[in-house]
Amino acid sequence: MIIRQIRVTPVAFRDPPLLNAAGVHEPWALRTIVEVVTDEGLTGLGETYGDLGHLGKVRECAQALVGLGVHETNTMYARIGAIVGDVVGDAHGLTGAGTREKSVDRVFSPFEVACLDIRGKTAGVPVVDLLGGRVRDAVPYSAYLFYKWAGHPDQEPDRFGAALDEAGIVEQAALLIKEYGFRSIKLKGGVFPPDQEIAAIRALHAAFPSVPLRLDPNAAWTVETSIRVGRELEGTLQYLEDPTADISRMAEVAAAVPMPLATNMCVVTPEHFPPAMASRAIGVLLLDHHYWGGLVRSSHIAAMCQAFGLSLSMHSNSHLGISLAAMTHLAAATPNLTFACDTHTPWQDGQDVVKPGALRFIEGAVPVPAGPGLGVELDRDALAVMNEQYEKCGIVARDDTTYMQRFEPDFSARRPRW
Amino acid sequence: MIIRQIRVTPVAFRDPPLLNAAGVHEPWALRTIVEVVTDEGLTGLGETYGDLGHLGKVRECAQALVGLGVHETNTMYARIGAIVGDVVGDAHGLTGAGTREKSVDRVFSPFEVACLDIRGKTAGVPVVDLLGGRVRDAVPYSAYLFYKWAGHPDQEPDRFGAALDEAGIVEQAALLIKEYGFRSIKLKGGVFPPDQEIAAIRALHAAFPSVPLRLDPNAAWTVETSIRVGRELEGTLQYLEDPTADISRMAEVAAAVPMPLATNMCVVTPEHFPPAMASRAIGVLLLDHHYWGGLVRSSHIAAMCQAFGLSLSMHSNSHLGISLAAMTHLAAATPNLTFACDTHTPWQDGQDVVKPGALRFIEGAVPVPAGPGLGVELDRDALAVMNEQYEKCGIVARDDTTYMQRFEPDFSARRPRW
Repeated sequence: MIIRQIRVTPVAFRDPPLLNAAGVHEPWALRTIVEVVTDEGLTGLGETYGDLGHLGKVRECAQALVGLGVHETNTMYARIGAIVGDVVGDAHGLTGAGTREKSVDRVFSPFEVACLDIRGKTAGVPVVDLLGGRVRDAVPYSAYLFYKWAGHPDQEPDRFGAALDEAGIVEQAALLIKEYGFRSIKLKGGVFPPDQEIAAIRALHAAFPSVPLRLDPNAAWTVETSIRVGRELEGTLQYLEDPTADISRMAEVAAAVPMPLATNMCVVTPEHFPPAMASRAIGVLLLDHHYWGGLVRSSHIAAMCQAFGLSLSMHSNSHLGISLAAMTHLAAATPNLTFACDTHTPWQDGQDVVKPGALRFIEGAVPVPAGPGLGVELDRDALAVMNEQYEKCGIVARDDTTYMQRFEPDFSARRPRW
Repeated sequence: MIIRQIRVTPVAFRDPPLLNAAGVHEPWALRTIVEVVTDEGLTGLGETYGDLGHLGKVRECAQALVGLGVHETNTMYARIGAIVGDVVGDAHGLTGAGTREKSVDRVFSPFEVACLDIRGKTAGVPVVDLLGGRVRDAVPYSAYLFYKWAGHPDQEPDRFGAALDEAGIVEQAALLIKEYGFRSIKLKGGVFPPDQEIAAIRALHAAFPSVPLRLDPNAAWTVETSIRVGRELEGTLQYLEDPTADISRMAEVAAAVPMPLATNMCVVTPEHFPPAMASRAIGVLLLDHHYWGGLVRSSHIAAMCQAFGLSLSMHSNSHLGISLAAMTHLAAATPNLTFACDTHTPWQDGQDVVKPGALRFIEGAVPVPAGPGLGVELDRDALAVMNEQYEKCGIVARDDTTYMQRFEPDFSARRPRW
């Protein structure tokens, strides 16, 4: 099965004003949809970041893969490595530092997922079966809470409403749990002074005493602040995610707080494993196939975590249904991925590029799509609409900081902030 | 595709009197051939150890896998783990200590290989394509030299003749290189006092100055001896394999010798990685899908080696063509497996359970079999003959030491010996 054509389509979809350490989500979130078409007419789907620099690399690499077989992922990886060459970092810095290897992994990922989609369709099996088969029939996700404004400043309030204190956060949790049935909660922190976020976690713990909680300030804190917060939250957090930046500082915190530290920022590429393992910086890795080089490479990382005694959860950026399907297949095939995964799905509020029906939440978990491959089908009308939105929205790269500064001119994304 | 039946057949084949630190190879080597048959009538092949304890576990697990799909390797692994339970070690100790995880991996491996064989046949692609696709068209192997007697004491001399000093070893190397075209050489040591083995390496270096050399005494030496030999062999060895036992002693040696240390004895299961990496005990891992849990799990290990800066080679025990095919597919799909692999193939001297033609050596390398799956076909007549040999030979577990003591009653396999 030879790759005959690859279509690369940038899309934009409405995003609420979610606050984080870097600023606030802009009104449109960007993604890139990849369609790999074989000589036998089969199509495989992939989804990745939409920032212009990354999109350009994805387009350039797409051309270089035409003519390869859908199984030749080693060759694809080598070709992409030769093209990517330099570092394509994330300007927002929310998924850690860019490295050459991570840049190659990011560009490779949607093509690999699309090829697995095709291979699953050919074999008549879901992608989970190409990754070792399911160890769970449905993948639990967490309620991913954000401090947020009532709406974007120049728009009507959105249906989620404001969440700017602990009462708002508890209300938001109740809404997401009611609608999706989530049984774990993650709060994106790094927005307000730590004592306010401690109060929010305590309020969540009081409101949902049996629900595991996590807090992720995206490295907004110093080592001292991280240790203080970690100690104050003893008994309330399942894990504390990226309280501070860099492996060495995380190791200092890890040695002093009672809960495991998790990361999707200081260990984001295989070369980070040796120093992180040597310094015992983390106890939980948040896997993300979008920057760990696709699903098979993510399964290598899961095996490495097993060997080194790390627990696994899953990281999320704003995404659509192709990614949710891929995340679900991967998580369903990963025995040691025992924590509920993160997802931004509720914030997309039904917007999607895949046809409805294949993906649903039951008691906070997404059943593995039953169809062959990823089990989701592209909605061409929706793709066209979202591509038009991309062309019109005027955003070409995520920049939470500049958008925030339009409304709060003194805002600084410098970290550590507290 | 459901597993309908699994046939498990022990076989024996003639083996020359190859010397090692544990004693000498018996006249018959044992293996187990696994045939997995699906509801669609496809058959997949696997090959593993033949020792009775292991054979019993393989037979017991085979029953437990009937009814599963050929993609459900996670479930297979879990079922086998529940059955294996305790440790099934190698009595000979030549592949390191037994652990529970390693025992499960050893039993799981032939079933996983057989399922990949079936999946490749179904998809119409070679197994290498299920592992990421080929990064090399042919896999280089090394000339695996052994000190040996002219023949088994109660038999005629074999065609390889004696090799009991450096002249004999150089002659053996010349023969294997002439017949197979090998471009790397490994000498199994731990047989004679270290100075004799140093002399053999120097004689090989003089006779084949451009050919990379390795020496493997199977942990027959103390730390002090290992350091002395390592230093004396500076400039002649590509790597020194398992000079001494245990991660901590290997680390002492590694810090003091000029060449990398390789192992298939002190790092033999994922749980050995953390201490080995922390102590920098090794520079080269010898992969072996027979005890690293099959081909996909071996690819996880290869990725781990890449992350931790370890080089890769491949270990061998006496084996037949199903294993050679599996080793070749794995090595062809593993970018960082850059050292020539070990194989015992020459010592089997044409005996095989697979039909001739699919596997051949060209300039020391085995081209990846072109057919779907493993690309080899079972020779049922040969299998029947070898099974009969198994029934008649009277050997049920490899025991190089007891066999050696029949001829040298004072022989002791204790290590370190020097």
